[in-house]
Order: sequence, then structure tokens, then C-alpha cells
Amino acid sequence: MTEPDRLFLADLARAAQAVEACLDGLLSPEPGADEIARPSRLLAAMRHGVLNGGKRLRPYLVLESARLCGGDRQAALRIAAALECIHCYSLVHDDLPAMDDDDLRRGQPTVHIAFDEATAILAGDSLLTLAFDIAAAPETPLSGESRAALVVALARAAGIGGMAGGQALDLAAELSPPDEAGIVTLQAMKTGALIRFACEAGALIAGADAATQASLRRYGEVIGRAFQIADDLLDITSDAASLGKATGKDEGRGKGTLVGLRGIDWAREELGRLVAEAEDLLSPFAEKGETLKAAARFVANRKN
Amino acid sequence: MTEPDRLFLADLARAAQAVEACLDGLLSPEPGADEIARPSRLLAAMRHGVLNGGKRLRPYLVLESARLCGGDRQAALRIAAALECIHCYSLVHDDLPAMDDDDLRRGQPTVHIAFDEATAILAGDSLLTLAFDIAAAPETPLSGESRAALVVALARAAGIGGMAGGQALDLAAELSPPDEAGIVTLQAMKTGALIRFACEAGALIAGADAATQASLRRYGEVIGRAFQIADDLLDITSDAASLGKATGKDEGRGKGTLVGLRGIDWAREELGRLVAEAEDLLSPFAEKGETLKAAARFVANRKN
Repeated sequence: MTEPDRLFLADLARAAQAVEACLDGLLSPEPGADEIARPSRLLAAMRHGVLNGGKRLRPYLVLESARLCGGDRQAALRIAAALECIHCYSLVHDDLPAMDDDDLRRGQPTVHIAFDEATAILAGDSLLTLAFDIAAAPETPLSGESRAALVVALARAAGIGGMAGGQALDLAAELSPPDEAGIVTLQAMKTGALIRFACEAGALIAGADAATQASLRRYGEVIGRAFQIADDLLDITSDAASLGKATGKDEGRGKGTLVGLRGIDWAREELGRLVAEAEDLLSPFAEKGETLKAAARFVANRKN
Repeated sequence: MTEPDRLFLADLARAAQAVEACLDGLLSPEPGADEIARPSRLLAAMRHGVLNGGKRLRPYLVLESARLCGGDRQAALRIAAALECIHCYSLVHDDLPAMDDDDLRRGQPTVHIAFDEATAILAGDSLLTLAFDIAAAPETPLSGESRAALVVALARAAGIGGMAGGQALDLAAELSPPDEAGIVTLQAMKTGALIRFACEAGALIAGADAATQASLRRYGEVIGRAFQIADDLLDITSDAASLGKATGKDEGRGKGTLVGLRGIDWAREELGRLVAEAEDLLSPFAEKGETLKAAARFVANRKN
């Protein structure tokens, strides 16, 4: 591991800690203003789904892209927490019996196993809802206009035109394998959209100029693609023990992946190309862009 | 039927038509800005869940409370559409096998029957997400500050401290029947919170003074309570044929209702008291308050 990569992992861990603390506070038993009560079992299920020691890559990307653009740290922290609520809700719902039917996540029982299916559905719904509350609330120290813009960008990344739509395409892919273009669209929606939002969010938080926003947006697309290819590679090359979840499933279900279509060598080359593009996109930021360059390398080379 | 009630029903139908047209446009196959694609099957499931000829009572309350306060009609229409997306998502998820397990709604197959369970989960998720997109987008002709405030109010009405939390309490009530205070909290959350939001929304849209906002908020609480008592009464006194859905279920499952606890006579008196309070709250608005007075009577006396 290189020194910048070591620094990156320390940064990532620090960011995860900050976001975890923020999420812990947001998922408190005290009802917020205009809330009637927070039923304890539902809250426990939400906390189980969120406070699970994730790597918090997406929150990290929000914090770092905001820092790069000079955005407010507290605002970035809350947008990072909102985004993580959406990422975690999607995992809770994807794990349901009617979807991927997974019993374990990070070595722990999934929410519908630890609680029950109805509670898992409601916990996901409530996390999704809470995300928009967090982003839009005045406690996020941004103008109303910026908060509203972040809500819209987050909703479009998460909804039918982004993550949820990608999950629908993924279900359809089990019945009828998509062609290469179909796979690219599916992955850009299912995993790419939230990662792109994470990177673009910094520019929105800081009110950066259009060129900066476009660079970060493209950077987000590039590392989103690298993330998915690395995931597909891992699915083929890893075993369950090192990942902590079932592997080889996508293959077994006949879902196409780019790695399956083009092969492992192509995938490794493509990852190199994507990292290079990400690094290029960050070069105008000089020294300040180093952490996000390291993030691109981490995403492409991750081992779990 | 009295003449004001007849006028009310015509108003309600007109509002439903306007909101339906707005929802139809928002659920178009064309991806919005920043959306990658709108998968057709998921979109069809969302449309099935929303464009189903509902009475659109909540949207009506948004439109009328906005009119009462002099709020922008187009903004009210979009907030009404956003609220209806949330109401309909909750029905799609409540109907799932893991929740109420209903096959029919308004005489039509529920979304998980017409499509499949995974698609119903995603359609609900996507409708919930779309709601916040609609409310926050600049196409809602309000200041960013107002759009953000509406997002927060809507999220708190819909999330763990409101509707979703109420549904969780309702699930728990099957195992351990709540006492009267518990029933009141459950119902205020499960059905009351969205209705209260609908009535308060007009004040938020128009930027009305605090006194007006408080009156509409209380009006919303009062008719929300009337709505639930009328629902519970109907559940006891109606038959499946006239309602188009299974009845007597709550009783059969041992869930407590106020009507079950206090009796039918009490319920009819309570409805009268609530209608009188709603009318009192609207009297400062003179002539302009007549439609919402009629709405209160309709909610209390509805037969399906």
C-alpha cells in the first residue's frame, strides 16, 4: 500500500466516524419538531440498517468534494448523512425476500431477519423520508434555494430515473439478460447515480462555478463506473469468506456484467483507464485534489 | 344532500381532475433533467398505484387551504401532487403481503398483484422519492426557502414521526392492543399527519401569518380525527359491496379503534363535535371558508 493510499484510508475512517456520529444524533428517540412520536421498534430497525459500520464511501465523497470547493463542513456532513440514509434504505429493501432475499449483510442479520419483513419495509421507507428532511431542514446551513436544489438532485439520483429504476432494470435482467448498452445503463442507474450525486454535491453545497460542477460530476460518473467494475470483478474472483456476503450470485442468476462479457483482463485495463481519467479531472485542483485521486484508486482496487 | 354539499362534491371532482392531470404529466415516460431513464415497467406500476381514480381528498385540502390564504395555484397543484404520491406510495406498501396483504383496492388488483412484489416495493419507493422532487423543484413557483420548508413538513408528516411510524404502531397493535391514548396517537400518526399537512400546506404555500397557519393546522388535526372515526364507523357498519374492499378486518384482527372502545353513538356525537370545531376554526375566513366547512362535513359523513 502506498503512503497516499494509507492516508486515504485514515481519512475515510475519520469521515466515517463523523458521519456515524451525525447519523446517530439524527436517529435519536426524541421526536423532531412536528413529529408526533418515534416508535421504538421502527427506530431500532432504522438504526440497525444505518449504524452498521459501513465504509461510508459516499459520505466521504460528499465531504471531500465539498472541501475541494470550499463548501461549509456542517452542511456537507448533513448532506452526507442524508445520502447515507438513502444508500442504507436501498440495502434494507434490496435484502427483502421479494428482492435479493439476503439474510446477512456485513456479517450481521439483515433488517427483515433481525426484525420482520413489515418493519424492514417501513424502516426503509422512513430512512428514505428522513433523508429529505435532513437535506431540506434549516439545520443544514445553506440557502433555501441550495437546500431545495440538493433535494432535487438527491431525489433524481435515488428515484425511478436513478437508483430505484436501476434496481428495477436489475430485476428485469434476471429474466432477459441486457446487452452491453443495457448493462451500462443499469449500472449507471443502480450504483452510479448515488456516487455521482455524492461527488456533485460538494459543488452544489459550495455554490461552485459550472465548470467545477461539471468536472466533479464527470469524476463521479467515472468512479461510479470503476466501483461497479471492481464489484463485478470481486464477485468473480473473491470468495464468501473475505467478502462477508454471498458471491458468484450474479453469474449464477445469469445476470450479465461487463466483466462477464469482456473478461477479467479488459476489466483491469478499464479500471486503470478510469482511474487515469479521474486523476486528470482533478489535476486543476492541484494539491487539494489528492484525496479524491486516492479515492478513485481505492474504489478501483478495493478488495471487499 | 344539501346544496353546499353538492357544490363540495363538484369542487372535489374538479380538483381531482386537475391533480390527476398534473400527476399524469409528472409520471411521463420522458426522463427529467438528471434522470438517466425511466424503466417502463416500474413507471407503469407507479402509474397503476397513483392514477386510480381516488377521491383525492388530500390534494383537495391543499388546493383549498392555499386558495383560502391566497397562495399560488400552480404551486398548490404541485404540492397536492407530491402529497398524493406519498399517500399512494403508502397504500402500495401497506397492501404488500408482509403488511396488510390486500389483493384489491378500489376494485382493482393492487400493485403487487398487477405486477409483482419487488416491483410494488420499488414503485412505492419511487413515488415517495418523486414526491420530494416535485415539491423541491423550481417548477414549483415558490422561493427556495418555502420549497425547502414544504419538503421538511411533508417528510415529518410522512416519516417515522408521522405516517410510517403510525403504520408501525398499527402493526404492533395486532400483537398488543393499545389503550385509548395509544389509539389516538396511532391514528394521529397513521392517517392524521398527512391530512394535517394537507391543510397546513396552504398556509406554507401562501406564506400566511402564524395565526392563520395555526388555525389551518388545528383544522387539519380535527378533520383528520373525524376522517379516522368515520373510517372506523364505516368498517363496523358497512359491507364489502359498498366499500369495494374487505371490511370488519380491524375488528377481526383485534385492533382497537375508538369506535370499538366507545361505541357507535359516541362516535356519531364526536363527529358532530369535530365538525362544529372545524366550522368554528374557519369562521374568521367568512365566505371563503365555506368549501373547507363542507369538506369537514363530507369527511365526517362519508359513506365510502
